[in-house]
Amino acid sequence: MTQLPDRTHAAALDVADPLAGYRARFAVPPGVLYFDGNSLGPPVVGAADALAAVVRDQWGRELVGAWNSCGWIDLARKVAAAIAPLIGACADEVAVADSTSVNLFKVLAAGLALDPSRKVILGERENFPTDLYIAQGLADLLGGGVSLRLVDRGDLEAALDEDVAILMLTQVDFRTGERHDLDAWTARAHARGALMVWDLAHSAGAFPVDLARCDADFAVGCGYKYLNGGPGAPSFVFAARRLHGRLRSPLWGWMGHAEPFAFATAYRPAEGALQFQVGTPPILSLAALELGVAAIAEIGVQRLWAKSCALTSLFLELVEPACAAHGLELASPRDPQRRGSQVSLRHPQGYAIVQALAARGVVGDFRAPDILRFGFAPAYLRFVDVRDAVRILDEVMADRSWDQPHFHQRRKVT
Amino acid sequence: MTQLPDRTHAAALDVADPLAGYRARFAVPPGVLYFDGNSLGPPVVGAADALAAVVRDQWGRELVGAWNSCGWIDLARKVAAAIAPLIGACADEVAVADSTSVNLFKVLAAGLALDPSRKVILGERENFPTDLYIAQGLADLLGGGVSLRLVDRGDLEAALDEDVAILMLTQVDFRTGERHDLDAWTARAHARGALMVWDLAHSAGAFPVDLARCDADFAVGCGYKYLNGGPGAPSFVFAARRLHGRLRSPLWGWMGHAEPFAFATAYRPAEGALQFQVGTPPILSLAALELGVAAIAEIGVQRLWAKSCALTSLFLELVEPACAAHGLELASPRDPQRRGSQVSLRHPQGYAIVQALAARGVVGDFRAPDILRFGFAPAYLRFVDVRDAVRILDEVMADRSWDQPHFHQRRKVT
Repeated sequence: MTQLPDRTHAAALDVADPLAGYRARFAVPPGVLYFDGNSLGPPVVGAADALAAVVRDQWGRELVGAWNSCGWIDLARKVAAAIAPLIGACADEVAVADSTSVNLFKVLAAGLALDPSRKVILGERENFPTDLYIAQGLADLLGGGVSLRLVDRGDLEAALDEDVAILMLTQVDFRTGERHDLDAWTARAHARGALMVWDLAHSAGAFPVDLARCDADFAVGCGYKYLNGGPGAPSFVFAARRLHGRLRSPLWGWMGHAEPFAFATAYRPAEGALQFQVGTPPILSLAALELGVAAIAEIGVQRLWAKSCALTSLFLELVEPACAAHGLELASPRDPQRRGSQVSLRHPQGYAIVQALAARGVVGDFRAPDILRFGFAPAYLRFVDVRDAVRILDEVMADRSWDQPHFHQRRKVT
Repeated sequence: MTQLPDRTHAAALDVADPLAGYRARFAVPPGVLYFDGNSLGPPVVGAADALAAVVRDQWGRELVGAWNSCGWIDLARKVAAAIAPLIGACADEVAVADSTSVNLFKVLAAGLALDPSRKVILGERENFPTDLYIAQGLADLLGGGVSLRLVDRGDLEAALDEDVAILMLTQVDFRTGERHDLDAWTARAHARGALMVWDLAHSAGAFPVDLARCDADFAVGCGYKYLNGGPGAPSFVFAARRLHGRLRSPLWGWMGHAEPFAFATAYRPAEGALQFQVGTPPILSLAALELGVAAIAEIGVQRLWAKSCALTSLFLELVEPACAAHGLELASPRDPQRRGSQVSLRHPQGYAIVQALAARGVVGDFRAPDILRFGFAPAYLRFVDVRDAVRILDEVMADRSWDQPHFHQRRKVT
């Protein structure tokens, strides 16, 4: 067992934490040390009652009239406007609709349409798979030489040549947490005449993102991670205002029409990012997302990021001696400015260790082949949680409790 | 005022109605005569508590673990399997995901990919606009001669030539309720070498649909109308099993991958309709849809249709004298086999009349330019509702209460 400082230090950090009071706003079950808010954020307290009220008092009482009387028809726009400042965007640059995958399809197609002379989407081989699949599917659909060029991270710059239409990057690597420099990569893409598409899945709600400053063209992001919008929450999609006049989403739906209820035969896109709306918005899911976004917006991304840095600093300080003792390796950059709100470790038995930790109440995540991923959602995570998690990790490694067969059995979702 | 038979006859029909007991399963507010279940079905009783429980006991207690422990990862497949028998499909031919618009995009693109020598999507000019927009957007995206050919209903057969790749029809016209013959049109399309895509938005859950018998290629449909899945509920999508080996959806997402959690770099589609899954499924919306579908499946589409015919027969019998007296015209076929579970009337002041009816508790719908639309959702509508609605319509027409200025003011959603 590794020597750990006692709990006093961490407890003192919680006492001094200006965000400590916000923990009570999130439904984190007692006894759970939750390091997986970057996979699924918890509900805000009151979300269950609020959803029940939407069903009972809006849908159940107003029926179809609720589209007007309860403001459902404006809800997606309202949530988009609440997300916009979290990512350095204006309200008319953001829409909330569909899934991150579908939104990525929209912006990749819209980007390719802006300059048909360029045919290549450039991305990282290690990007989150659904991003790669969506780009592969679009290339397959369009034909005519459109292709996805995948390279290792170190080869990105060399691969950014005059054939590249779009540089598509996820800001925070889902395995290692390594963070791309938003400004630098956007500038590089633009310098080579390419458009920049950012996936902000592991960014939005965790730290400040400034799409205006970096002058990004398009972005997409996730509602159910640091925005706590609920499982499969609708996603957001961003298009810079300077592109709006030329913007052409490939999915022309009635909710993206300039006048949906004119029931015109010909499509005429709504202005701005609103054209990324497609079908009827999923009100129940949007209502939950609205609550999660409101809580994060109230705390503010600057304060969230400050606390995230303090949490991960404590984690690294405590965990590195344990790592050294137990054959765990740090897989994330040590500098908080070079990563998202996450620290990953490596171990050949990572899967079983993550299961053994979960059995002891420490919920992290495994990512193949060997990544133990710890997300630090600063809205509700405590410094004592960090200290307790490291202690349990140290115990699990020392007593090899992960070496039991049932911790090695793969579940459907890993 | 038109002479109406007294309420006794309708009340007797309710007493004899084998489905009468099911009304208590749906949250239709007292005092509301709801003829708009074809726009948004009401929640089933208990949906509010069920949703609250998903938030509180699943999401709030199990957090990310709920994907396994609460079966979230299989929920979309489970709901798809429950919808399948309602439309004459096998479970592996149906997926539940995204919106009807997005699903239509998938099947149109998949259809075009099956025979690149044909370039035309043939449809009706009067089809629901989002269907037209999606097809226009796909044609714009693909280029290379792909186009949408829109004709009037009477010209469809002549327009079905050897250039047509896909005949795209909505089975029930959203304005008039007129129903296309599923078998006949599918056979005509196939006879000319075209694929058949059905939009079942106003069909599923209202009457029996047999996609196997008619041998359709693809179909899409809506979760929030007769399936009572809630506002913006996920949609269903069907692909015939004989196409599965050659099926290529244009939206390649991780949830449609054969092994989503292998996180492989290259896309490999799941078998069957499952490849139409794209992003992370919206669990809250799916949970509501599951309840609505279960209620409809329990009643059974044969019994629903039998009651629908009885309801609309009574409506026509009562309303036609009122129509004659007040300048209202029947816009729907009189024969129930030639329409969906809906009867539409025409009047130049249709919008104001629908508003005036709503103010008196009769909720129908207006569709430009002059359609008063009455949906008959047989799961919860009573014969006395039909009788009372006709009486109120007769009163509203007789006292011209619709002629007040505020009934003419357009709302956002009409």
